[in-house]
Amino acid sequence: MRSDPHSRLIELRRDLHRRPELGWCEFYTTGRIVDALHEVDLDELYVGSDVHGDDQIRPPTDAALDRAADRARALGVDEAVLTKLEDGYSGALAVLERGPGPTVLVRVDIDGLPQRESGDDDHDPAANGFASVYDDRMHACGHDAHAAIGVGVAGAVAASEFAGTLKVLFQPAEELGAGAASVVESGHLDDVDALVAIHVGLDAETGTVIPDVDSFLAIRGFEATFEGASAHAGIAPQEGSNAIQALSTAVSNLYAIARHADGKTRINVGEIAGGTASNIVAESATLRGEVRGSTTALRESLEERARSVIESAASLHDCAVDVSSLTGAPSATCDERLVETVADAARERGADVVPEDGAALGGSEDATRLMRAVQRAGGVATYVGFGASNPTGHHTATFDVDEAVIPLAVDVVTDAVCAIADPAA
Amino acid sequence: MRSDPHSRLIELRRDLHRRPELGWCEFYTTGRIVDALHEVDLDELYVGSDVHGDDQIRPPTDAALDRAADRARALGVDEAVLTKLEDGYSGALAVLERGPGPTVLVRVDIDGLPQRESGDDDHDPAANGFASVYDDRMHACGHDAHAAIGVGVAGAVAASEFAGTLKVLFQPAEELGAGAASVVESGHLDDVDALVAIHVGLDAETGTVIPDVDSFLAIRGFEATFEGASAHAGIAPQEGSNAIQALSTAVSNLYAIARHADGKTRINVGEIAGGTASNIVAESATLRGEVRGSTTALRESLEERARSVIESAASLHDCAVDVSSLTGAPSATCDERLVETVADAARERGADVVPEDGAALGGSEDATRLMRAVQRAGGVATYVGFGASNPTGHHTATFDVDEAVIPLAVDVVTDAVCAIADPAA
Amino acid sequence: MRSDPHSRLIELRRDLHRRPELGWCEFYTTGRIVDALHEVDLDELYVGSDVHGDDQIRPPTDAALDRAADRARALGVDEAVLTKLEDGYSGALAVLERGPGPTVLVRVDIDGLPQRESGDDDHDPAANGFASVYDDRMHACGHDAHAAIGVGVAGAVAASEFAGTLKVLFQPAEELGAGAASVVESGHLDDVDALVAIHVGLDAETGTVIPDVDSFLAIRGFEATFEGASAHAGIAPQEGSNAIQALSTAVSNLYAIARHADGKTRINVGEIAGGTASNIVAESATLRGEVRGSTTALRESLEERARSVIESAASLHDCAVDVSSLTGAPSATCDERLVETVADAARERGADVVPEDGAALGGSEDATRLMRAVQRAGGVATYVGFGASNPTGHHTATFDVDEAVIPLAVDVVTDAVCAIADPAA
Amino acid sequence: MRSDPHSRLIELRRDLHRRPELGWCEFYTTGRIVDALHEVDLDELYVGSDVHGDDQIRPPTDAALDRAADRARALGVDEAVLTKLEDGYSGALAVLERGPGPTVLVRVDIDGLPQRESGDDDHDPAANGFASVYDDRMHACGHDAHAAIGVGVAGAVAASEFAGTLKVLFQPAEELGAGAASVVESGHLDDVDALVAIHVGLDAETGTVIPDVDSFLAIRGFEATFEGASAHAGIAPQEGSNAIQALSTAVSNLYAIARHADGKTRINVGEIAGGTASNIVAESATLRGEVRGSTTALRESLEERARSVIESAASLHDCAVDVSSLTGAPSATCDERLVETVADAARERGADVVPEDGAALGGSEDATRLMRAVQRAGGVATYVGFGASNPTGHHTATFDVDEAVIPLAVDVVTDAVCAIADPAA
Repeated sequence: MRSDPHSRLIELRRDLHRRPELGWCEFYTTGRIVDALHEVDLDELYVGSDVHGDDQIRPPTDAALDRAADRARALGVDEAVLTKLEDGYSGALAVLERGPGPTVLVRVDIDGLPQRESGDDDHDPAANGFASVYDDRMHACGHDAHAAIGVGVAGAVAASEFAGTLKVLFQPAEELGAGAASVVESGHLDDVDALVAIHVGLDAETGTVIPDVDSFLAIRGFEATFEGASAHAGIAPQEGSNAIQALSTAVSNLYAIARHADGKTRINVGEIAGGTASNIVAESATLRGEVRGSTTALRESLEERARSVIESAASLHDCAVDVSSLTGAPSATCDERLVETVADAARERGADVVPEDGAALGGSEDATRLMRAVQRAGGVATYVGFGASNPTGHHTATFDVDEAVIPLAVDVVTDAVCAIADPAA
Repeated sequence: MRSDPHSRLIELRRDLHRRPELGWCEFYTTGRIVDALHEVDLDELYVGSDVHGDDQIRPPTDAALDRAADRARALGVDEAVLTKLEDGYSGALAVLERGPGPTVLVRVDIDGLPQRESGDDDHDPAANGFASVYDDRMHACGHDAHAAIGVGVAGAVAASEFAGTLKVLFQPAEELGAGAASVVESGHLDDVDALVAIHVGLDAETGTVIPDVDSFLAIRGFEATFEGASAHAGIAPQEGSNAIQALSTAVSNLYAIARHADGKTRINVGEIAGGTASNIVAESATLRGEVRGSTTALRESLEERARSVIESAASLHDCAVDVSSLTGAPSATCDERLVETVADAARERGADVVPEDGAALGGSEDATRLMRAVQRAGGVATYVGFGASNPTGHHTATFDVDEAVIPLAVDVVTDAVCAIADPAA
Repeated sequence: MRSDPHSRLIELRRDLHRRPELGWCEFYTTGRIVDALHEVDLDELYVGSDVHGDDQIRPPTDAALDRAADRARALGVDEAVLTKLEDGYSGALAVLERGPGPTVLVRVDIDGLPQRESGDDDHDPAANGFASVYDDRMHACGHDAHAAIGVGVAGAVAASEFAGTLKVLFQPAEELGAGAASVVESGHLDDVDALVAIHVGLDAETGTVIPDVDSFLAIRGFEATFEGASAHAGIAPQEGSNAIQALSTAVSNLYAIARHADGKTRINVGEIAGGTASNIVAESATLRGEVRGSTTALRESLEERARSVIESAASLHDCAVDVSSLTGAPSATCDERLVETVADAARERGADVVPEDGAALGGSEDATRLMRAVQRAGGVATYVGFGASNPTGHHTATFDVDEAVIPLAVDVVTDAVCAIADPAA
Repeated sequence: MRSDPHSRLIELRRDLHRRPELGWCEFYTTGRIVDALHEVDLDELYVGSDVHGDDQIRPPTDAALDRAADRARALGVDEAVLTKLEDGYSGALAVLERGPGPTVLVRVDIDGLPQRESGDDDHDPAANGFASVYDDRMHACGHDAHAAIGVGVAGAVAASEFAGTLKVLFQPAEELGAGAASVVESGHLDDVDALVAIHVGLDAETGTVIPDVDSFLAIRGFEATFEGASAHAGIAPQEGSNAIQALSTAVSNLYAIARHADGKTRINVGEIAGGTASNIVAESATLRGEVRGSTTALRESLEERARSVIESAASLHDCAVDVSSLTGAPSATCDERLVETVADAARERGADVVPEDGAALGGSEDATRLMRAVQRAGGVATYVGFGASNPTGHHTATFDVDEAVIPLAVDVVTDAVCAIADPAA
């Protein structure tokens, strides 16, 4: 006798929680999702490179990909799946074709974060033995639960009276602001009539549903490499052009870019590296950062200022600098009609439906790219939050979700999908 | 028929130049020196751990050591030698016991630098096919020539009338300011009556000998790790304590420490790393740097200021910081009597003997530790420079030495060693 | 024959515009207002020290006060008035007692800004000969128009059927965030049932009335004096503790304080001074700045961070620092009932009534102190904006107001005052 | 009966000490020197504008000059003298023409420093009632004693057998690096055969004479004014271009300019000012600083780096900047022949003659301009230090000199002047 589906979803979530993978390296994760979907009577299952447009992804180094593949292989992921994932084309898209109705896309994301997970006893994953087995990454944003919910929705819709086409997208590399862009280019969105993207947590209590999350900040990443001239730090310090000094001047001044009256702005330099030895004036140094704004215009204004600050800091220390923009995401809005459908479904399931309180958010999401693509093609989209009584904030070492959110989200999304296909039901 | 010894020394120098190794990883280098010494009729040859005091070394990561060992093994280094080098105990000490005379130590250093070598056509090692085969390190300070000179001196003294004990020390990890310290603890210096340390280059022309180099700057390395608190850069930037901002504030202010009226000072931050992702306020960041002074007191004064700057920068950004002092080296002075002996030998060989012009230098050397140890025990010491018409400065990508310095240095040092044992000769 | 009152108000506004005075130095301004009020049949006129609580003001230096008094005297201000203004107790309060009805306070502010006014031909005050005659200050926020409106309201209410008590407060030192505090302590507010404060401009068109401006940012000023040790910059730079370096480190890092997810924050360092000569390491340096937040809690959080940054920057450069908080202002809210009364009056006069769009503002106002005091005592309060088609932003060199705002504001406020006393009318 | 000359010189020194004046404002000082010279049988006395080339001086504001003139007038300085000093042409040149021998120039400087003097009991001028009567300036470099020595030398040579021409230059504005330049243009140096410049103190004991001080650092002052754009700090911070941020970034990075292997360098920012109010983003800010180097080339290299740092810091904050070079001084060398003459005279008077120990100095002196001018014209020059057991360093609040240096310096310089004219004597 098969175990009950909710238990299996929780087991799946915990298994993924133990083995978080960063963007484009979700090899074990994809393999595990594919496995779990074997129990669902799918019409199509696209894996890895079949989910993405050509040449659209920006994976990490080959070495990182190789390590991810080796680990997945050792954990039993099928070689046929791994072949599809080569070069970082991770993720999957499950399809049910059940009639002449509309095409609905449910989108979940699946990647983890480069952060060490807490081992404290009062951190539930640690106490219950499913904390990350890796020192340097963790599911600190609930995407493990998202993957489980995606699998659950596919199964529940398959078992329902749904008469239309359902696509469930297991999207990689959301945390890099990167995974959605290549899916947009894949063609899989072209016929989508309605998109429901979800997120758990959001500092709301379990049982709360926010059907209209759309105050995401527009975001853009950037990377700057300062190139100066090395010199012996004792013999001829004046002959160097110090890339580490240039970077430090840039960092101090990037955070000091003026606040903007038109709305929220954010700036962060999240990674730095530079130099080779303590006795050599550093020839090269690199920083990676991001800007955000409550509108795309604010983001662009900040991006322009950031570029100018970086270039002047380089010039101040006689360094050259190369600034590149990384993938980002725009802002987006939810469609009222779809918001109502989701809200109704949530109320039916006994949830507490609350409107988004913009002030409480400040994150970004590349789901906005998918939303805009669907809307451009005439469809509707919304982004739904499911409270999960998370004990601490997103992206912290003790982030966790109340697993009760998983069955509730499966139920609400499944009902909403069915209602989209049959509004009268 | 054996090739002439000078050709063999130049061949050795070029071979080492092609395969530079960083401090504590001189596994191929040590193996190759041991090989070359097989042609010398030594009385003793200490290798690796037998050259160092117990538990005195500070090697890099196990992974780095493993890679170095694997490379050396692949290049044919004997397993018995590799066993002696385990854990980073690199280097060698060759001993000739030829009579009742004094014990003379000749010290050469053997490590390379973490720097990419020029591939330009007008860079002789590149033009002649012996540039570094590695992208990330190079012999940019002439220690390849030093190793060859050490082997040459061992051979030439062995073939001479020398009546005393000669020790030739092939010291690792000079560039880290680290290798001499554990040799001092080994006991090998206890009976040394005279120490001759050498260096090629020094921006002097080939044929020039500087018998009294002792304006080395006292040096001390330091490492600081800032520990703050991570936060989501979009959702809750105010909850972070930003380790990258703390580091940047420290860097800007370290270089801005006031110049000192009492003499030369130097400060450098040569390496930085921090953060994990562009959307996370960085929890941790590390810098590595060094201070130097023309006296040990100046170095200490600067070290104290640097520590205070780092701690205040941490506090400014609500971070904790751990500052550790790394191995360093004091200043030292040359003994006039030994300087004269070397100068006489140099003049005999037709060299142009010039006194040190302190203003031309600014480097540091952990040979000063050996000099002080020998002097404390009642011996004498000097540090001898051999001009080598280097085309560009030490620690630059196009540093090179005129190989004619190798036979000249072998001759002068050999003659000086013999003269120490028999001043009347 | 007397000129029509509106012409006289515009003449008054232009006269004040030509002679702007900074906070606590509004001597000519107060004198001119007192003069203008002579034509109104007042019951009481409080001047200078009679408007303020004891010992509550923070005037500038005696020299600045003396200069202001001398100028006012030379321009014909009555000596009896000047005596009341001694020590910086500037401003006035006009009172009409016309019956048993409620007490209504209309508040206008009267000070200028330390900024040079544009002399461009397309700047109306310059083209029409009433630009500031001083190089270093200007009415760049419309308080000249406020004073004229206050006089106009006093006259119009005096001529009306109003049956109650009207107080018109001509408040000094609003730009310093300072003038309201001592009025609160004066007792003049104790019996106020309704407070109407006004402002012209706000980037709205003439004819627009915003009856409910209350998204003012809470504000607090601060001043920090760094005290180090001087030294001869050539002979012994290391002996100094550099107050200018400490200040610069503080400035760079104050602007870099993290943005806050809970709402708007602002930080500025608007004035710096330090050092005595280029060849002396500076012993002392001072900065003046301010923090703002959309809630009082945010302001306090920012103030705490700023203090910590300043203290760490001092410590980093071995300086002591004294940080003092200057007067500020809290946030405040408008009372719906009073908002409606004003909105009705505005509509009656043909104005376009629009609700406040919080996003368009970011300023602060110490009127919030008055509002809170009145509300604490059981009264109601609102803050009314009158669009004035200002060509450029507040606090810029080409700020100006459409003078048509003056009669409109007089009419609307007069009607509202009457309606408060007789809601049924 | 007249008091003894040494007592009168000490009285003069103390009177000048009580009333220090900054460069170009030495009005009382010049008047007092002229008075004291009335007792000497001079052939010529040039005052103020007669000492300087046309249009060569750079005085402070007219207001500062007016205040200095008013004070001098109130203290009884003759109106005829004050007329000569108008516009800041301060200083004097006394001439004795006593025969056909060589022309000897003795140069002393007379200005004070912008620094508060200590009032501590163990500070001799305070204990004995002749500390500066001004809060903001002091003789912290011994120029009060210089003036007295200059007067003493004029008197003593007048009373001697000297057969030549003596000129005693009382030079203003040395601390500004400015006073010598216009004297060079005056023509008074054209016929000078030998120049003896002096300084007391130099951290040497009374009785010590250093006849060959010439390791002065070349110096150049600079001034930079940053011009940005003002904005309301609360309403529209993003519209400002923040001159105070630009200045702070410049300061932090100016001190962080790399140390130079070729010799001593110094950099200082000694004065800053900027902004107008805490709620306005600062439109303008100014810094004043200086660079020094042990050679003129080093000074120029540092000056070029400083200019580049300032310009990039401006650009980083979208500001314009105007950098101007202020007057400076080159390095110079002493002529051996003259050094010997002075040394002999010193030994004759029982002084302890020591050669300059370059390492002990780090100051600059615009006497080097005079030395170079005399040497260019074929004459010889030296700069003589007289130890004065100063309790603390130059330019500190407790600097003082042992007054016994005054008669010794008068004697040694007088004897040297006579010996120059009559080497055989």
